Amino acid sequence: MESRKLIDGPCPIGRGLHRIGDTWSMLILRNAGAGQTRFDQFQKNLGIAPNILTRRLSALTAEGLLERHRYSERPPRDEYRLTEAGKDFLPVLYALGAWGGRHFPDGDVAGLVDAATGKPVMAVVVDRTSGTPLADMDLRIAPVQDH
Amino acid sequence: MESRKLIDGPCPIGRGLHRIGDTWSMLILRNAGAGQTRFDQFQKNLGIAPNILTRRLSALTAEGLLERHRYSERPPRDEYRLTEAGKDFLPVLYALGAWGGRHFPDGDVAGLVDAATGKPVMAVVVDRTSGTPLADMDLRIAPVQDH
Repeated sequence: MESRKLIDGPCPIGRGLHRIGDTWSMLILRNAGAGQTRFDQFQKNLGIAPNILTRRLSALTAEGLLERHRYSERPPRDEYRLTEAGKDFLPVLYALGAWGGRHFPDGDVAGLVDAATGKPVMAVVVDRTSGTPLADMDLRIAPVQDH
Repeated sequence: MESRKLIDGPCPIGRGLHRIGDTWSMLILRNAGAGQTRFDQFQKNLGIAPNILTRRLSALTAEGLLERHRYSERPPRDEYRLTEAGKDFLPVLYALGAWGGRHFPDGDVAGLVDAATGKPVMAVVVDRTSGTPLADMDLRIAPVQDH
């Protein structure tokens, strides 16, 4: 996944995926979105090997999706908080979750809710201008956006 | 990534990510959404190692996101087409692309357009009921959806 094409190429999906890194990173961002900040929390919840977690946290910090804050000097301990770019990725994860719940619904499935009201929220990807769900549109990726 | 928690656990994001597999798989689905169907096309465009591509195509087929169709008997050659679940994943990728274009905009960035009109389409994740962008909402994942 180190191809220059993914990093600097024109496709924003490739760019985005390169910055995210892998699916572990997406799960770390999901957990950060749910309020987790600490190595031990991520490790326990995800059952991820410590060396992989260390590497993914460093990569997510380097890409500007997490920020490291020292919360204890002795022993030295850091916590990780979502940056604006990291927070902005959460709706993508919620759209992915809506897709997952739709197509793999067996057993209990957790759902997205409004934190204040507890009302269920159904994530759907739409065109900002028309409000049409992208699933109902015929789309293509144009080589270079004119902007 | 083989944890039962991801496969059968209540979190639909984990379930979805497990089914997708990895970021290579997302790029394969992206290319399938752009009309590619054949091994050679994927391989050439993605610069992916043949053994990894073979494995990812098999996994995506096993998970029901791609369908295999034989288009030549001699030599035996298959092509891969998106299933309904695979097609339904494309809006998630477009939302991811919109995020990638927003936060990593250096140089030329391709954009999503309406295939018929060529008009730019901006993918945004909203709540289906209220139309409110999820980025503007305070959300949490509730343990089990009551439905």
